[in-house]
Amino acid sequence: MVDIAMIEAARVRLSGKARRTPLLSSPFLDEIAGRRLFVKAECLQHTGSFKFRGGWSAISALSPDVRARGVIAFSSGNHAQGVALAARMHGIPSVIIMPSNAPKMKIDNTRAFGAEVVLYDRATEDRDEIGARLSRERGLTLIRPYDEPMVIAGQATTGLEIAEQALENDIGAAEVLVPCGGGGLTSGIALALEARAPAMKVRPCEPEGFDDATRSLASGRIERNLSLSGSICDAIITPQPGEITFPIMQRLCGTGLVVTDAEALAAMALAFTRLKLVVEPGGAVALAAALFHGSELAGDTVIAVTSGGNVDNDVFLKSLGH
Amino acid sequence: MVDIAMIEAARVRLSGKARRTPLLSSPFLDEIAGRRLFVKAECLQHTGSFKFRGGWSAISALSPDVRARGVIAFSSGNHAQGVALAARMHGIPSVIIMPSNAPKMKIDNTRAFGAEVVLYDRATEDRDEIGARLSRERGLTLIRPYDEPMVIAGQATTGLEIAEQALENDIGAAEVLVPCGGGGLTSGIALALEARAPAMKVRPCEPEGFDDATRSLASGRIERNLSLSGSICDAIITPQPGEITFPIMQRLCGTGLVVTDAEALAAMALAFTRLKLVVEPGGAVALAAALFHGSELAGDTVIAVTSGGNVDNDVFLKSLGH
Repeated sequence: MVDIAMIEAARVRLSGKARRTPLLSSPFLDEIAGRRLFVKAECLQHTGSFKFRGGWSAISALSPDVRARGVIAFSSGNHAQGVALAARMHGIPSVIIMPSNAPKMKIDNTRAFGAEVVLYDRATEDRDEIGARLSRERGLTLIRPYDEPMVIAGQATTGLEIAEQALENDIGAAEVLVPCGGGGLTSGIALALEARAPAMKVRPCEPEGFDDATRSLASGRIERNLSLSGSICDAIITPQPGEITFPIMQRLCGTGLVVTDAEALAAMALAFTRLKLVVEPGGAVALAAALFHGSELAGDTVIAVTSGGNVDNDVFLKSLGH
Repeated sequence: MVDIAMIEAARVRLSGKARRTPLLSSPFLDEIAGRRLFVKAECLQHTGSFKFRGGWSAISALSPDVRARGVIAFSSGNHAQGVALAARMHGIPSVIIMPSNAPKMKIDNTRAFGAEVVLYDRATEDRDEIGARLSRERGLTLIRPYDEPMVIAGQATTGLEIAEQALENDIGAAEVLVPCGGGGLTSGIALALEARAPAMKVRPCEPEGFDDATRSLASGRIERNLSLSGSICDAIITPQPGEITFPIMQRLCGTGLVVTDAEALAAMALAFTRLKLVVEPGGAVALAAALFHGSELAGDTVIAVTSGGNVDNDVFLKSLGH
């Protein structure tokens, strides 16, 4: 359903639009990890997360007349901003449906990226009904956050860059740790590396208590999270792995890695001190696994993706011990 | 004394060793600046500042037998770390002379990058005497922080990258704002752009009260700072512009820009929120000028270099209003 040709085509569409984010490292982090550790700093992507890649990929793949009518997405987070900016750069309208109690900064940011934000009351309104009505009335195309081939192909361009940057840094075999929510980034990177760097193995990383992908890979069928709130890693909390993404992960990924909130916060602090990067908790789980779960890793080299940096001041201060 | 051939030669020596740091942007920052604003994120360089480039350039230019005896530097900050790591990567010893009351973290970091740190008492000991004795006894080569052609050529590679990244981003003419201490980075970038992007004009940026370069450019002769302490922008406080760097700045640079500590802190906060970058106060003065001194700038596009990110937690927290 998603193959390397689609990923290469997405890369052509993303060329000059998405950033090629750097691969960073620090001898201090190598020492903690007990091996060579490279960080794919995807928090430096436009809108502060990898989601811009998927949003651009999906929108740019639409036929011109369909695209011109606009797009719609459900999100209170990084997907909202990625779709909004990609739509504005295409000169088309976007509608983002967000809960009315979403953080004001996220609503403001999404609007500032050019989207029309439609708020709904979680207690009394049905967001799917609102979305379906708006799509029908205005002919908007729904951009799903992960279970959508063109979105996966866009996220997968991160994997093409990792394969190139591995060559530049004399990295042969390595485990590639990826923060995993619905699995769009994880499955995309796994597909890209299967084709371009087959000696690499992707491993999904999740916060404790929200390890649906890890449990699903262990049991061989899609498992759900028992709760969807209560983690500081909100950006990567989804009910369950996607219908499209899970079979890809099952075929290509290694065992999942699960980190605590405290480990994610400690990884954020080290990214601040040693890499000069701002990483959000959900975006730091792979780095946390690389730093603090070395006994569960194989080989002398690990690559961790820091997938986003959209963190509120108070959570960031907490990572610095304040 | 430094020409484009030396800069290109430094780039060859730095290839695969220094990072090509990314050129970042955010629509939010464009709006504040009132023009297109690009940020050359040199805080993502190895050791967290551009100083690694100059250190590597100088050490790699030594003859093998001289290099093998080792290098020495006076610094309590970014130059110390840049020289220490470059020396370790060359497999040679380095001695860094630091005041005994330097922050413990800076001493620890410099040691962790492989240097032998020699502490001296500012009140009772003469650091130049200590340095001269060690150099004589061990045959160490002194690496000056800015008034040294091979160091300037190394810092200038930042300018070569800016010229290339400008092309990639359809930037023609632009002012290039650079944090200025002794002037190694400023004069180096100016030389590189003179040869590779002559439509660009470099402008040095400094903190209020420590604007020796700005006043020197205005008067046409080297002016000194009245004080060397009391700024949060400690990384770029020097007594006066260099003897080598000043004539280059005089020939190639536009008027200096001077920002307040509060503006530097506000720029740090915006780099955190909008770019996901950690920038130190001295490294943020050019971004502050781009954001808050727009009336002193010409043209519709500005490039600001964020030259370093080695900031203590308490100062960083202050930038976030804590």
